[in-house]
This record gives sequence, structure tokens and C-alpha cells, in this order.
Amino acid sequence: MQAIEIKKGKLFYLDQTKLPLEELWAKCASITDGYSAIKALKVRGAPLIGVFSAYCIAATAEKIPEKIFFTQLAKNIKYLKESRPTAINLAWALKRIESIVCQNKNKPIPFIKKLIFKEAKEIHKEDVNLCRSIADYGVKLIKKGDTLLTHCNTGFLATSGEGTALAAIFKANKIHKNIKVYVDETRPLLQGARLTAWELEKKRVPHVLISDNMAAYLMQKGKVDKIFIGADRIVANGDIANKIGSYSLAVVAKYHKVPFYVAAPQSTFDLKLKNLHEIPIEERNPDEVRTVLGKMPISHKNVKVFNPAFDTVPNNLITAIVSDKGIIYPPYSKNIKKLIK
Amino acid sequence: MQAIEIKKGKLFYLDQTKLPLEELWAKCASITDGYSAIKALKVRGAPLIGVFSAYCIAATAEKIPEKIFFTQLAKNIKYLKESRPTAINLAWALKRIESIVCQNKNKPIPFIKKLIFKEAKEIHKEDVNLCRSIADYGVKLIKKGDTLLTHCNTGFLATSGEGTALAAIFKANKIHKNIKVYVDETRPLLQGARLTAWELEKKRVPHVLISDNMAAYLMQKGKVDKIFIGADRIVANGDIANKIGSYSLAVVAKYHKVPFYVAAPQSTFDLKLKNLHEIPIEERNPDEVRTVLGKMPISHKNVKVFNPAFDTVPNNLITAIVSDKGIIYPPYSKNIKKLIK
Repeated sequence: MQAIEIKKGKLFYLDQTKLPLEELWAKCASITDGYSAIKALKVRGAPLIGVFSAYCIAATAEKIPEKIFFTQLAKNIKYLKESRPTAINLAWALKRIESIVCQNKNKPIPFIKKLIFKEAKEIHKEDVNLCRSIADYGVKLIKKGDTLLTHCNTGFLATSGEGTALAAIFKANKIHKNIKVYVDETRPLLQGARLTAWELEKKRVPHVLISDNMAAYLMQKGKVDKIFIGADRIVANGDIANKIGSYSLAVVAKYHKVPFYVAAPQSTFDLKLKNLHEIPIEERNPDEVRTVLGKMPISHKNVKVFNPAFDTVPNNLITAIVSDKGIIYPPYSKNIKKLIK
Repeated sequence: MQAIEIKKGKLFYLDQTKLPLEELWAKCASITDGYSAIKALKVRGAPLIGVFSAYCIAATAEKIPEKIFFTQLAKNIKYLKESRPTAINLAWALKRIESIVCQNKNKPIPFIKKLIFKEAKEIHKEDVNLCRSIADYGVKLIKKGDTLLTHCNTGFLATSGEGTALAAIFKANKIHKNIKVYVDETRPLLQGARLTAWELEKKRVPHVLISDNMAAYLMQKGKVDKIFIGADRIVANGDIANKIGSYSLAVVAKYHKVPFYVAAPQSTFDLKLKNLHEIPIEERNPDEVRTVLGKMPISHKNVKVFNPAFDTVPNNLITAIVSDKGIIYPPYSKNIKKLIK
């Protein structure tokens, strides 16, 4: 089960906007294909867009004529980096490609092209392993019989491996921890309802779908043991950015003393930023709120809309961060520095 | 602007499931019509279903043959009362009809039929006045330039007058308080997006639509001055039941020290119940969560769902209750008793 695939040097992706009704694979044949796939959320999930963007640069680099190779490659990278601002993994992966190119500038172009592909594959392989590590650490936080709650999507559709928060949940289910998962539908784009419920169904994990505004009521009734979410960026003091609705969940969890866990790989950490105020938050098209998935209008035509794609959770609301390097507890500024380079 | 109408003794209602795309009026010609209209939320809003149910009993009483009048009337009332369990106004209005009938049992049937109609009209007239009073008290809590946030629908579509929470907002806008309103879309049935935004547009009140999970982020950014919501039931200690999502908002408001106001008429108070644990919470069809408005599936086909239509807010999260008798502050047990009979 995976969301992207390389076949004979060509890059293919599962169009996640069509799920769960249709499993449609598309080819990413150009840099604009890659940009639109990310922008339109056909490929999404912080770790996955890192891996996908690296492959996209690699696959499109193949076609750049030698004469304009370096300028065009730089243009491609700059362009792709602008597709989404909040998840740091995109910038992180593209920076790795840039470094490889920079270090080998004097080598023959065909060789550099191969190196780029190799680096993309390396990022991919690493991501698969990071997911495995996160699952191994995360599962330790899940007890037999736990009822968990999750938001948005953090499984094999959000990474190139098994996932982050969901990977830990899959693993807990696999080793018969007898768990149950409440899934926030995650308006406006319904990644929870469309993608997470679909993944849990595929992996045969017992799950129950709710509207986002029901999570607090479940906690009031004592029906949630732990919350597991992913992250699009984690900064030096342990503040995070994640899908809109994460902050609301975190506040409500704090109020009910429900542990709130954030799972993400090294590539999601951005230690150059001090705190959440420095994280850019992407605002998306108002039609995402005015309609359901662009298809069904739900309000009057010209209604004004506020549509932040993400929000930020301050470190004091986070019980622990599950990284591939281990579980990080507060004080985060100190403990993140110890583990993440 | 109104949601029900009596023409020549016949009862008509605006089908709220069709809004905002279509303004369709339908006739309530039988007790089953009335039951389905309430059950399917074609007529909704705690105060409005009180008034509507009284008229429905009155209009259908006309046709009951004299021989079976009392038994059939009792059956109709019992049947209609079961259409929705959480809002107390329905039971309250039907009880008033029952009392009138009981007090006049020895009078001629045609006279009793007229009395029932008169009582329904009285309930209607009272509701209009209650709304006016709530608006008068509520507007005192709104300052010039305030940004308010509201959930579900509490305007002229939810009552037979101008509304409860929204009536205060309409009034604040009318006297040029230069306000702005954030509207929670209110999943699963989108009463905020469909009805409240539509009402605010009709009344030319500046408003911005958000997904429910964005409200906390707005509060984190200091963009909400006050929250105004309605109630489906208010019990003796000041605990309330209201549309699912109200509890989440209340917890988040408390965390950010944003005042949380609940507006409702006398008919919403149920002083026989001690606290929120005694309020029955209606669970509705899973398809409401599995789909958007029954039309658009958003998850895999057989996904399990939890779908409470309401939740409960404990009194300690409520800044004040705006009733038609005045603004009630804590301690609620004492102060509600003083004002509400």
C-alpha cells in the first residue's frame, strides 16, 4: 500500500482527491504536473510531499537540456517549493537535492542527473525507515484496549512508508492491542473521512467516524484515552503546525487531561524557527469552505470565508512528540536539541 | 421574514432542508406531515418546533370526528412529542395544549377546537415577544466593534420571531454597533452555513463562514470577543443542551477567557431536571455524518459513525444566560429560580 510509485524512471501518484470512491493513478510528467498535484492535494501529507517533490525534481531533471541544466533545475526547485508553505518537509527534501547538485557541480551533467535520482531514492528509503521507527516508539504509548482519536491523515497516504501517528496505530492493532479509533472527518477537505477511515478499513482497524465538533463531547464522556496526530512543522521549542482543528483538539484534550501526542519524522523539525509565531500558515481557496470538495455548495454564493489550512499548537498542550529518534518529552527546547540534528 | 405561516386555518412551513438554494414552502396537512417535518429538520430550532407543534395539533384537531376526539387528540400529541427528544420547547408547547383541553373537557368539541387554535396562536404571539425581549437584553452585552462567533442557527428560522442569540446580533447590527460575526458551519447538517449565513446576508450583517474546527484558532489569535449561542434545554443548575459542537466551543472559550453567552426564552427552561446528566441526547442517522446532507458520500460505504445531534455544556463554562426575563448570571441555581417560573 503506497501513494507514489517509480516505474522505469517515471513518477506516478495515487490521486488522493478521488479517494475513497476511486483509486486513480496519475503520471507526473512535468514540473507543473508536480506543482499542481501538490497544490491541489492530489499528493499530500508532509513527509509524502517531501519524497514526491524530490522524485519530481529527479524525473523532470532528466529532460532538461545540458546547456540550461543548472538554471532550469534551480527554477524548478524554486517553483516547486512554492506549492505549499507550511509543511517543512517539502523545503527540506528540495534542499537535499540542491546540496547534492552543489557538491557535484563539476561532474558531468548525466552523472549529476543520476545523483539526483539516487538522492530522491535515498530520501524515499529513509522516509520508509523513519515511519517504521516512529511506529516502534509510538506503539509503546498505546495500551491494550485504548480508544484513540486522530485528526486528518497520517498513514501510508501521508508518507512514503506506513505513516506517522497512524503507523503507530496500525502497529498497535497488529499486535492485538484491541484498540479502537475515533476519526475526525477533518473539514474542510475531509482527509479524515476520505483517507484515514479508508486506510483503517484497509488495515482492519476498528474505527468510528465523527464530525470534528464531536471530539470534545466524546472526551467529556470519558471515551477517549489518547490523541495521536501528525505535524507539518515542529519548531525548536516544541510548538507545532498541523492541519486546522489540531489546536482545538489540543485545548480540549488539555481540559480533559487526555494525553495529546504528536508523531513526526526528523524531516518535519525546523529548528531554525523559535516558536509557532514564525511558522507560515497557508490560507487556501474560500471555495473549500463554501462548498464540500468543490462540488456541493453549502452556503449562499458569495459568503466571505476564513480558510487557514493549518493551525499551531503551543508546546504546553503537547504531552510528547514521537519522532523516529525516540519519544521526546518536555522541556522540549532542551530535549529536541539532544535528539534532532 | 418567517419560517411558518397560518393561512385560513392551514399550516405552512418553509422547508429549511432546501435552504439556501431554494425557498420552498410546504403544507402541513396531517399529523404525520408534522412529525416528518420536525424529524427531518424541515422545521427546526427549539422555539420554532414548539410553536409549529402547537399549530400542527390545532390544524389536525379540526379534522378529528367528535366521537374519537379526545383519544385521537391524545394520540396525536403523544406521537408528535416523540419527533425530537432533546429540545424541551416541543414538550412544553404540547403540554400547554393538553392543559387547555383538560380544563375545558366538558365544553362542546367545536369550542375546544377553537380554544386549541387560540392557544397555539397565543404560544406563537408569546414567542415573538420573547424573542424581542431576548434581543433587548442580549444587545446590552454587545459593544461597538465587537466580533462575535455563533454556532448552528438561532434566528428567525429557529423561532417564530426574530430569534434568540441571532436576534440580539441583528439588533446590535441595526443600531450600528459595527459588529462582525463568525459563523460555524455546524456539521453534520450545516445549519450555520446554510441558515445562519443566509439570515445574516438577508439582514445585511457582516459575516464570515468557517469550519467548526477553525473557531479555536480564531480565539488563539484574539479575533473573537464574544460567543453567542442558543439552547435546546436549560436545566435547574444552568447546565444546557445545544447543537453538537457547543461544548467544544465552550471549553475553548473558557481557555481563552472569551465570554460564552447562551440565549433562550422561558420555554427552553426545564427546571424539573437538576443537571445535564438528565437531559436526553438525540442520536441521529449515521448517514448524516457519512454523507453531506444525504447527497454526497464522504467516506467508505459502511463506516461506523457516532452522531449525537446535541451536546451539553456545564454551567461553569457559561458566562451568562440571556432570557426574555433578563440576563442571568451565576450562581445559576439561585438566579434561574428567581426569574423563571
